[in-house]
Amino acid sequence: MPGFDRLAIIGMGLIGSSIARAARKAGCAGTIVAIDRDRGVIERVVELGIADTATTDAAQGVRDADCVILCVPVMANAALAALIGPHLAAGALVSDVGSVKGAVVRDVAPHLPEGVHFVPAHPVAGTEHSGPDAGFAELFVRRWSILTPPEGTDPAAIARIRRFWEALGANVEIMTPDHHDLVLAITSHVPHLIAYNIVGTAADMERVTQSEVIKFSAGGFRDFTRIAASDPTMWRDVFLTNREAVLEMLGRFNEDLLALQRMIRWGDGDGLHALFTRTRAIRRGIIASGQETAAPDFGRPHGALPPPPDEAQ
Amino acid sequence: MPGFDRLAIIGMGLIGSSIARAARKAGCAGTIVAIDRDRGVIERVVELGIADTATTDAAQGVRDADCVILCVPVMANAALAALIGPHLAAGALVSDVGSVKGAVVRDVAPHLPEGVHFVPAHPVAGTEHSGPDAGFAELFVRRWSILTPPEGTDPAAIARIRRFWEALGANVEIMTPDHHDLVLAITSHVPHLIAYNIVGTAADMERVTQSEVIKFSAGGFRDFTRIAASDPTMWRDVFLTNREAVLEMLGRFNEDLLALQRMIRWGDGDGLHALFTRTRAIRRGIIASGQETAAPDFGRPHGALPPPPDEAQ
Repeated sequence: MPGFDRLAIIGMGLIGSSIARAARKAGCAGTIVAIDRDRGVIERVVELGIADTATTDAAQGVRDADCVILCVPVMANAALAALIGPHLAAGALVSDVGSVKGAVVRDVAPHLPEGVHFVPAHPVAGTEHSGPDAGFAELFVRRWSILTPPEGTDPAAIARIRRFWEALGANVEIMTPDHHDLVLAITSHVPHLIAYNIVGTAADMERVTQSEVIKFSAGGFRDFTRIAASDPTMWRDVFLTNREAVLEMLGRFNEDLLALQRMIRWGDGDGLHALFTRTRAIRRGIIASGQETAAPDFGRPHGALPPPPDEAQ
Repeated sequence: MPGFDRLAIIGMGLIGSSIARAARKAGCAGTIVAIDRDRGVIERVVELGIADTATTDAAQGVRDADCVILCVPVMANAALAALIGPHLAAGALVSDVGSVKGAVVRDVAPHLPEGVHFVPAHPVAGTEHSGPDAGFAELFVRRWSILTPPEGTDPAAIARIRRFWEALGANVEIMTPDHHDLVLAITSHVPHLIAYNIVGTAADMERVTQSEVIKFSAGGFRDFTRIAASDPTMWRDVFLTNREAVLEMLGRFNEDLLALQRMIRWGDGDGLHALFTRTRAIRRGIIASGQETAAPDFGRPHGALPPPPDEAQ
């Protein structure tokens, strides 16, 4: 069975707690050590029973682990690596789940002792919810996990973490940190940025009330509020650490939007129609590849009675 | 029972066919007449059995109807109104479902004879699918239908169409066409525009392949592809007929996006974090109001095996 004797997970939020659940379900971790600096999170992890042992002490927690996965906001990695570096077992594998990879390689690698293998990873999966209760074992099934091993990384270490992600149900791809950061800028970071932006714009209207924005959100707006409800600290760190690629992709987005704005101003119906037709093909490709549901409206429920407001909050 | 003796629906796409199904289910139409200029659509409507009679001849179809609902792309309304105007029954109620209301009032009203009541409507509901097979009876449940009656409209006519929409499960609100067009610009039209735009931007990358965009779309991008798969003709018409309000709201979106871009360039983490925190509240409001599911990830399925590619296409 692919896996590790002692798997230490640092940061028991949505991703960390999902890895714990998925690794146990797949039977690919002998002992799971949950580490989080927040005592409340550790208490909750113990209540949920999703790890074998749990601690707020990262230095202590990583001892004897043959794999340590950092599941914290990207900018927290440097201090965390400095803290745990001296306590890592010889030959241990260190990985992470950060949405930016250039910064992680830069911040983590210098703190790791000789003989420790560092294979950065990014599982492209998630929901808008956060914390240990939000995780679930199936989160990574059919999603892609991207590995960005620095040059010279031991191929056996890469193969081990690849098999681990595959055991959790993920597909695995390997690329350079720079290419990862460019690809994710357009498939994840800029989409989040414009979602956050339009929700902010709508919240600041004077001639349209917040109540109207909420009532009539089913016209399309509500789709954007989902990713704009994602963890603020995680996303702040993404934009601060992948600045160049995000600004490059945002520049293209803005250029295209200006062209679209001009088509509207000048009444270029054919131009609009051509773009609106072209964009349908991409969704068909995403559905065919198993990355999206074919059900209309994401399979949202229709027609049921509304939940009581207390439950919905 | 609220309703009509003979309900004629012109345009049997997603919305028109959903009205037919919902009206029959609610028992609020004696006879349902389906009208579509496309013979293939009419044949399909007959196969589906969702109307009592079906025809491609609008002039013939509206005869003796006490209610006629136009369910065609916004820019098709003028010619359609001119065509059916002379054939409308005295005292008939004419309504529509267009996403832009100023243009509809301007285009339709002049063609209607004295004694015919015109109450424009816009049910804020839909999916990314089109055509008579895409409709379903529950589409309007808990969604808002906005009425924009011109000044001087017979209150009894307004009350009739209000009760009709309520019988279909909708909430009803009344506002002026101008205000409607402003509100929908931010809750629907600009969201669609930026979704179409980012899907177009992603499709045009050179340094990121289309295959990579598809594989890693679960990072956020795939959410945008849903509304960017909506009917191209309908949306072309929306942008051409609600130009002013769309350009105004787009101007605000762009202004806010530039501010966000500047925060990223200058590393203003506190500014980013403050916005990302503020945007969470709007989603909570939308969920609490029953306009969105509380399930994570829109309730998308997780962990199931992928459908065979043939079915997914």
